[in-house]
Amino acid sequence: MFPVEGIGEVVTGDDVAQLLWDAIEIGPVEIADGDILVVTHKIVSKAEGRVAAALTDADYRRAVLDEAAAVVRRRGDLVIAQTRHGFICANAGVDRSNIAGDRIVLLPERPDRSAATIKSRLEALSGATLAVIISDTFGRPWRRGLTDVAIGVAGMAAINDLRGTTDMHGRMLEVSEVAVVDEIAGAADLVMGKSEGIPAAIVRGVTWEPASGRATDLVRPANEDMFR
Amino acid sequence: MFPVEGIGEVVTGDDVAQLLWDAIEIGPVEIADGDILVVTHKIVSKAEGRVAAALTDADYRRAVLDEAAAVVRRRGDLVIAQTRHGFICANAGVDRSNIAGDRIVLLPERPDRSAATIKSRLEALSGATLAVIISDTFGRPWRRGLTDVAIGVAGMAAINDLRGTTDMHGRMLEVSEVAVVDEIAGAADLVMGKSEGIPAAIVRGVTWEPASGRATDLVRPANEDMFR
Repeated sequence: MFPVEGIGEVVTGDDVAQLLWDAIEIGPVEIADGDILVVTHKIVSKAEGRVAAALTDADYRRAVLDEAAAVVRRRGDLVIAQTRHGFICANAGVDRSNIAGDRIVLLPERPDRSAATIKSRLEALSGATLAVIISDTFGRPWRRGLTDVAIGVAGMAAINDLRGTTDMHGRMLEVSEVAVVDEIAGAADLVMGKSEGIPAAIVRGVTWEPASGRATDLVRPANEDMFR
Repeated sequence: MFPVEGIGEVVTGDDVAQLLWDAIEIGPVEIADGDILVVTHKIVSKAEGRVAAALTDADYRRAVLDEAAAVVRRRGDLVIAQTRHGFICANAGVDRSNIAGDRIVLLPERPDRSAATIKSRLEALSGATLAVIISDTFGRPWRRGLTDVAIGVAGMAAINDLRGTTDMHGRMLEVSEVAVVDEIAGAADLVMGKSEGIPAAIVRGVTWEPASGRATDLVRPANEDMFR
């Protein structure tokens, strides 16, 4: 895993793929076939103009409710919401940190499409076959602490489906569907940090097959969710 | 991340640290200061004798209920349970795959202690300062697919506490507690796979401070869990 450093403040209209390419070109690592680019959603959102002013806490709360398709839980100012994409996260994914002034960052409207755009642009610039994951930091039930997960995917399956695979004793695997893009997003977070201005990482050496995966494939329908 | 290959079937009484050390010694990578060893719980459980016979599905179901401190959900044969450690997972962590014959693997009785034992033994063998994470594969609410998480930790904090840290604009980070050992466990899974007989990985390059962390620190009390 290699952090992509040297990307400054991103503003509306910026070409994220070009920014990544420029930063990688002056960095120590060249893009190679099979690389997975993990990009934190914030620079994607900023480039797509998914920012808003929020001068007061009330403005912020209103933005959260605007972004929420459904409110799952609410306690004081904190809201756990389902986004229009189907993801469950705090404050419908609306963030106040890592942006200047009294502005807030919303999630990309269609993160899978954003990932596909970055992938095709970066593939054109590099000549390499790539996958792209757009990540965000989510809380989760049962366990303390946050982890980075995939909210946008292009070029690979979101879930590594091992159903029908046997273990070395010939017994069917019980662990059959691995959310590999979430593991990759979390892994990339280890080199990106939260406050260091490193908004992307190159992940190399993971075996994946080109496929038309989407992060929305990770949304678990209520009727098959025994954990919620 | 480097997979630790060449560890065969583990049986009761085996010394996991010695097995890891022997496998690493003949492998391409030497243990270095600051390495984090991620070990899947199965070989730890097997070495500790946490296996049982389960000739029938009824035997298996009984073992699951024996291991459960509380049943959270039940649908047909599948049980979501809280283990005695406090973790929420399918079948109270009792596994049927990756073990020969009609046997089942239970979780270690005290995975944090198991991690501490492996850490001190490996540190004695290598002379390096290490952290050890014992991992298992868990499902989760809201999102499809499973990811590897930490069920045992020794030598480092389970949660990277960034409260009080500011971003590059001087604003307090909203993302303040990162479950870094879960991200590391998931990252290690990317090189271990589920059926390839690679039960451990060396993770290098993650910044961590020696600390007396425990995986049970990750158990979120019900009264502060807005997500469940």
